[in-house]
Amino acid sequence: MGWIKVVGIGPGNLKDMTIRAREALQECDIVIGYITYIKLVKPLIEGKEILSSGMRKEILRCQDALKPALEGKKVCIISSGDAGIYGMAGLMYEVAAKVGVNVDIEVIPGVSAFSSAASILGAPIMHDFAVISLSDHLTPLNLIEERIEYASKGDFVIALYNPKSKERPDNIIKAQKIMIKYKKGETPVGIVKDASREKQSVVITTLNDMLNHDIDMTTVIIIGNEKTYVEKDRMITPRGYIL
Amino acid sequence: MGWIKVVGIGPGNLKDMTIRAREALQECDIVIGYITYIKLVKPLIEGKEILSSGMRKEILRCQDALKPALEGKKVCIISSGDAGIYGMAGLMYEVAAKVGVNVDIEVIPGVSAFSSAASILGAPIMHDFAVISLSDHLTPLNLIEERIEYASKGDFVIALYNPKSKERPDNIIKAQKIMIKYKKGETPVGIVKDASREKQSVVITTLNDMLNHDIDMTTVIIIGNEKTYVEKDRMITPRGYIL
Repeated sequence: MGWIKVVGIGPGNLKDMTIRAREALQECDIVIGYITYIKLVKPLIEGKEILSSGMRKEILRCQDALKPALEGKKVCIISSGDAGIYGMAGLMYEVAAKVGVNVDIEVIPGVSAFSSAASILGAPIMHDFAVISLSDHLTPLNLIEERIEYASKGDFVIALYNPKSKERPDNIIKAQKIMIKYKKGETPVGIVKDASREKQSVVITTLNDMLNHDIDMTTVIIIGNEKTYVEKDRMITPRGYIL
Repeated sequence: MGWIKVVGIGPGNLKDMTIRAREALQECDIVIGYITYIKLVKPLIEGKEILSSGMRKEILRCQDALKPALEGKKVCIISSGDAGIYGMAGLMYEVAAKVGVNVDIEVIPGVSAFSSAASILGAPIMHDFAVISLSDHLTPLNLIEERIEYASKGDFVIALYNPKSKERPDNIIKAQKIMIKYKKGETPVGIVKDASREKQSVVITTLNDMLNHDIDMTTVIIIGNEKTYVEKDRMITPRGYIL
């Protein structure tokens, strides 16, 4: 029997991958993924059949997984971070249903980029939090803005994905404007680029000052809640213990 | 030089642990943790010095980590799931600062319980989401209620931690009452108990019906957004692709 495993490979470094994910990659016949992610797992998939493709080919990748799986092959389709957080898990189920085939699909969770970024910053999450993508490629901008508004009103720690790209330089500016209506300007903000990858870079700044730093598509931004503070270059959100 | 690593051991099954976490446990001299979590990693820490303690001894565990680390020992303090999400990461930094010692602290991220629960349910998250703990042990109940209200208004997928205990049987009832003001009663709800552990159990139900199921402290509940649906026993939130 063939199968498809939608594998969250973690944020980048192979050490941040789970053992279950590694075993799936070792066990399978075919690995399908976005070219950047294929490169990240290269050392683990030598000798396998590899189907890599570019940005916005997500539907194609899912379609490509179906035929070999139905023919009895073991297929891994990979996502960076967690496959279930802005990843390939849902789309794989949707494409299989649309095509109308019965195939064994399993999702293997992984460490998400926000989780990795948080660990590098110290402990900025710790408490209730909201994760919002600023990409309006698949989501209307007004819904994104509304979510930033509600997450700010509720004093959630906020993690922002896909904060800025060449086509969307302004969404992060809009987001900052909304957040600063409800959160103090001095609220700590962590900006982590390429978390857990070779080019990783880290900045701790404030909500006031966050737009003065380098931000792109591989950046995750974490904005603290009312109680978040910075001490010795670590961003910390208290859980509420009295020491 | 001694160190402290705050290790997210993942949701339960050792296969859902990252390689970095496993290496830290193998490398260290002392493992400190809540007794249930120590049991989960037992096969990996044979022969190590182990300090296990009960519930609500979190501050003590962090204090216990300091002395040996300052004496040059390698100490792992473990959290289930991700150490930075309702885990030990923040408290470890806070206790070290309070005691006023300079010790090397590193956080090792892991797969969080909500991530594991999501992978078991299918792909219920996929899009913008909020994570909220219903425990009012360290957080005022009115703030928890406010956050549920805002997360519901913003149509976030919502993951609830610590939904119910003997001392707090009513918070989940209050949460459901708030959510149903803004989300349809037919909104899919996934209830996963002991995700990735031996006794794992899974229910997919609706917001209307969720209170008629077994819920306790080791349960994670995931409530869909407006677009979440159930197909072939999988809970799926579309990312927005047009198929």
